Amino acid sequence: MSFRVLAACPQTAARVGVLTTAHGPLHTPAFMPVGTQATVKGLAPDELRALGAECLLANTYHLALRPGEELVRQLGGLHRFMGWDGPLLTDSGGFQVWSLAPLRELTADGVAFRSHLDGTPQVFTPERVVAIQEALGADIIMPLDVCLEYPAEERAAAAAVETTYQWLHRSLAAHRTMTQQLFGIVQGATYPELRRQAARALAALDLPGYAIGGLSVGEPKAAMAAALAATVAELPADRPRYLMGVGAPDDLLVAIGYGVDLFDCTLPTRMGRAGSLLTRRGRLHLRNARFREEPGPAVPDCGCAVCTRYPAAVLHWLFQEGHALAGRLASYHNLYFLCQLLRDARAAIAAGRFAAFREAFLRAWAPADAAARREQHARWRAARGTVARDA
Amino acid sequence: MSFRVLAACPQTAARVGVLTTAHGPLHTPAFMPVGTQATVKGLAPDELRALGAECLLANTYHLALRPGEELVRQLGGLHRFMGWDGPLLTDSGGFQVWSLAPLRELTADGVAFRSHLDGTPQVFTPERVVAIQEALGADIIMPLDVCLEYPAEERAAAAAVETTYQWLHRSLAAHRTMTQQLFGIVQGATYPELRRQAARALAALDLPGYAIGGLSVGEPKAAMAAALAATVAELPADRPRYLMGVGAPDDLLVAIGYGVDLFDCTLPTRMGRAGSLLTRRGRLHLRNARFREEPGPAVPDCGCAVCTRYPAAVLHWLFQEGHALAGRLASYHNLYFLCQLLRDARAAIAAGRFAAFREAFLRAWAPADAAARREQHARWRAARGTVARDA
Repeated sequence: MSFRVLAACPQTAARVGVLTTAHGPLHTPAFMPVGTQATVKGLAPDELRALGAECLLANTYHLALRPGEELVRQLGGLHRFMGWDGPLLTDSGGFQVWSLAPLRELTADGVAFRSHLDGTPQVFTPERVVAIQEALGADIIMPLDVCLEYPAEERAAAAAVETTYQWLHRSLAAHRTMTQQLFGIVQGATYPELRRQAARALAALDLPGYAIGGLSVGEPKAAMAAALAATVAELPADRPRYLMGVGAPDDLLVAIGYGVDLFDCTLPTRMGRAGSLLTRRGRLHLRNARFREEPGPAVPDCGCAVCTRYPAAVLHWLFQEGHALAGRLASYHNLYFLCQLLRDARAAIAAGRFAAFREAFLRAWAPADAAARREQHARWRAARGTVARDA
Repeated sequence: MSFRVLAACPQTAARVGVLTTAHGPLHTPAFMPVGTQATVKGLAPDELRALGAECLLANTYHLALRPGEELVRQLGGLHRFMGWDGPLLTDSGGFQVWSLAPLRELTADGVAFRSHLDGTPQVFTPERVVAIQEALGADIIMPLDVCLEYPAEERAAAAAVETTYQWLHRSLAAHRTMTQQLFGIVQGATYPELRRQAARALAALDLPGYAIGGLSVGEPKAAMAAALAATVAELPADRPRYLMGVGAPDDLLVAIGYGVDLFDCTLPTRMGRAGSLLTRRGRLHLRNARFREEPGPAVPDCGCAVCTRYPAAVLHWLFQEGHALAGRLASYHNLYFLCQLLRDARAAIAAGRFAAFREAFLRAWAPADAAARREQHARWRAARGTVARDA
């Protein structure tokens, strides 16, 4: 795998690059759709390709529990299992263990927890998480890390950084495959100095790429930006930077401005299933009665296969009637929207006008307000059956 | 609209033809996927096109109740509403009123019933059903008819034939559009002599096409074949014949042998959502444990986009996990299977070897046994919330 920076923004830290993997190139900045259980909910691989996705993400935690990494390996690996021959990334399961599994506990070896599916006891060690991902066979893999809820105390955040660093060493020692690239993960919660230390320590290890974890977990946007700036400043310029779990359009453009190259998030598909569409002016709710008789497209300036084909009234009606096609079409639009936003961002960076592009976008964009975001976050956590904030 | 017979089988009554509509040609014998509520459940128009469907069907009864034909008309008609620019057919709602709606009652004018959705009182007259379908705008439309449960007494069947005939005259008088072709519907339950009389009376009206209703409602296969033979013998050879609601592969080939040109049924999509696949040897159940670790395709001799792409184990797993993609992929396979079967049948007819083709298919095919079929039929009726057999 190699990463090449092709163009850099003169006013911000944004850059355009290309990451070459064993399954082809990935043009950055890039958004990676999430297939938690090896399937991007409701969408088939050819649609993901058509809407512009180049790399997909799958969840180690979920696949290890069901159907199990050995079955995926026997069946020819994750690419064959997902019907996707392009680049793939698997996370480490760290975030899911900390946010999803009940009764989790840090041990000398790793983390013990119970499956959120059936309560069976499980253990993830750094070595086991690498072995799971080697059996799955994604092109980019992640080491087990310690994730904290927001807000986290500084002492707890420092301990998480230290453990994550030790686990990274064990992960590197356990990693055997040549074609899979193991990234490091920078933790440090919202403490810029901790972030700087963690990033500096990882940078010294000369890793093929660097992930930034523990953000977008409920902290204010300013705190996320400060943590991001502190982290990226210490990372080597010639390696890709991956901001985990971030997918709101405004967050993407801000992070790109700090020099981030890769993103993933379930936001576009989760929103889609709930009947919300991303637009340049914010979110739009297809169940809204104003769409009942609307013959035009739901998002008039969108060139996606859904907006150009379906009257808004039909999408409204598919949601009202509860058809499976509804969530699929809305998810398609949302993923197209983010991939198109990043295509536009790449063009703007290459043309030296990214700062103006970001400015224009943020001016038109109406973010969900802070209270709405907190409420939504709480609902999602509740829906995932997690034992929030007791960690 | 015109219908041309292009080739006829020397040993059977099977023929190959082409039906030209305002939205393009339809090659017969043809299977038409059913989009009850203007959407073939889980599948998008481009997939239906890709799997070989040329004409789709939508239900007048369902669309009149929700969202209402006027909204569909305002939005540009059913083609725009469904995102489908090929031929479309709407049924008359007769079958649904008789099988789905509670408290239905024959009146002097038509049929009064309550919506199965919210209990509101509704009236369908022949004139209103034509007006609904003219607002929807399908290429082929159907007159309101009287449908009976199986078994039906001969006197009741004769009365239904008589009423259906009178309603056809009222439908023809009400029909205004030039581009929409109104077929006639032959009823007569399982009484061959009634079928012959009904077909003869309709043939004299020189209609653009003829539908055969009231079959595949639980009667033995031999009774269906006898009714079919009696009906088709009286219909003009130069008009298309449409057997309503029939979709089992063996039934299709038998009916084609009697000279039937068009079919529709929800069977392939309903089976698909339940996890069953059509194969040349009968039905296959994807939830069966034998597929858990199967790396090969679910149906090895199938060339569809699902069988060529997904290991059977992945389809099994998608059903076990309850993913929306599961029913969609299985529905795709089943519709492909029927469209491919009819493509093969057309080639066999054109080559003069249809009888051998049908024989070979029926020898390999293991039909659901009669008890299984009856049980399945009862389950479907129960699932549809209908007041079975009290008509």
